[in-house]
Amino acid sequence: MAPVWMRPPLPELNKAGSNFTASFNPTHTFDNPPDDIEILLVPGGLGMRRGNSSEPVVDFVRKTYPKVKYLLTTCTGAGVAARAGVLDGKRATTNKAAWNEIVKMGPNVKWVSPARWTVDGNIWTSSGVTSGFDLIFEFMDTVYNKNTSHTIQGAVEYVRAKDPCDDPFAKWHNIPPSGDCRDNK
Amino acid sequence: MAPVWMRPPLPELNKAGSNFTASFNPTHTFDNPPDDIEILLVPGGLGMRRGNSSEPVVDFVRKTYPKVKYLLTTCTGAGVAARAGVLDGKRATTNKAAWNEIVKMGPNVKWVSPARWTVDGNIWTSSGVTSGFDLIFEFMDTVYNKNTSHTIQGAVEYVRAKDPCDDPFAKWHNIPPSGDCRDNK
Repeated sequence: MAPVWMRPPLPELNKAGSNFTASFNPTHTFDNPPDDIEILLVPGGLGMRRGNSSEPVVDFVRKTYPKVKYLLTTCTGAGVAARAGVLDGKRATTNKAAWNEIVKMGPNVKWVSPARWTVDGNIWTSSGVTSGFDLIFEFMDTVYNKNTSHTIQGAVEYVRAKDPCDDPFAKWHNIPPSGDCRDNK
Repeated sequence: MAPVWMRPPLPELNKAGSNFTASFNPTHTFDNPPDDIEILLVPGGLGMRRGNSSEPVVDFVRKTYPKVKYLLTTCTGAGVAARAGVLDGKRATTNKAAWNEIVKMGPNVKWVSPARWTVDGNIWTSSGVTSGFDLIFEFMDTVYNKNTSHTIQGAVEYVRAKDPCDDPFAKWHNIPPSGDCRDNK
């Protein structure tokens, strides 16, 4: 199965001409996925905004969500989930730098800003990139156990936001307030 | 050239049996490195503590440091630089969770705690994992330009520590104070 390269997709993002990159190495395809997915994590990134190339991902999320225990999104991954329709009527957030582009992908989503992350039922969404750290530690505290979460925080030395409303980037990007960041149920 | 796999090196770190991993895909070897390295970034991780397997890395850092403009370390990468001797007489810090093990690798290093990162001449060292974000934004502000740094912070939504002394993890791991975290020259 071919690796998924993380090379910069646009030459203007690789001005120094670096050719040292990472790859992710898949073990399954969308046509032959594992049948026991408990947590479906949908990441964002530039790829989800490149024309129709992310349609198979959107289809997979739509088909798989009813079978999972939890759906988590980070960054513009919320746009993929929105396009799949699984966020309709739910509270969700996304990267504030990409806000205006992403919220259009889900006109029936209750988009929340400011919000470092949101929880609505079994759907957890986070804002841009590193806000996913705050989401995953909160998720571990809630669903797994606080000891593991504490150990990992101490090892990676991450200073987490513990309040989902603690989001300085909504204002940074001039995103008007909407929804309730603290209504985590 | 073979990819460098990021599979968990120890079975006890992979209790769920995940087999979806990333790889880094090298373009050069230690015997045939690029001859125009300006910034040498030495990461940490479990690999640097696995017996003699990191000796070639240590040798490469020792040989290459005199030719670079800047040496940056993250996490236990400071231990690799310490073993290479290039931190001797310099101020440096490292992951507080691994502190006692790493400082032994450099008895002549001026180890600093608390410290989210340190600067000594052209050597920049950071503490555990995510403290590298604070280091790299400070490095960009100092050596490149604040506009780029500002744009990237806004995109990845990282709430940075701007004071190198702002390190809650020294106390978290009971590491006694040493050196001066703010003496950045």
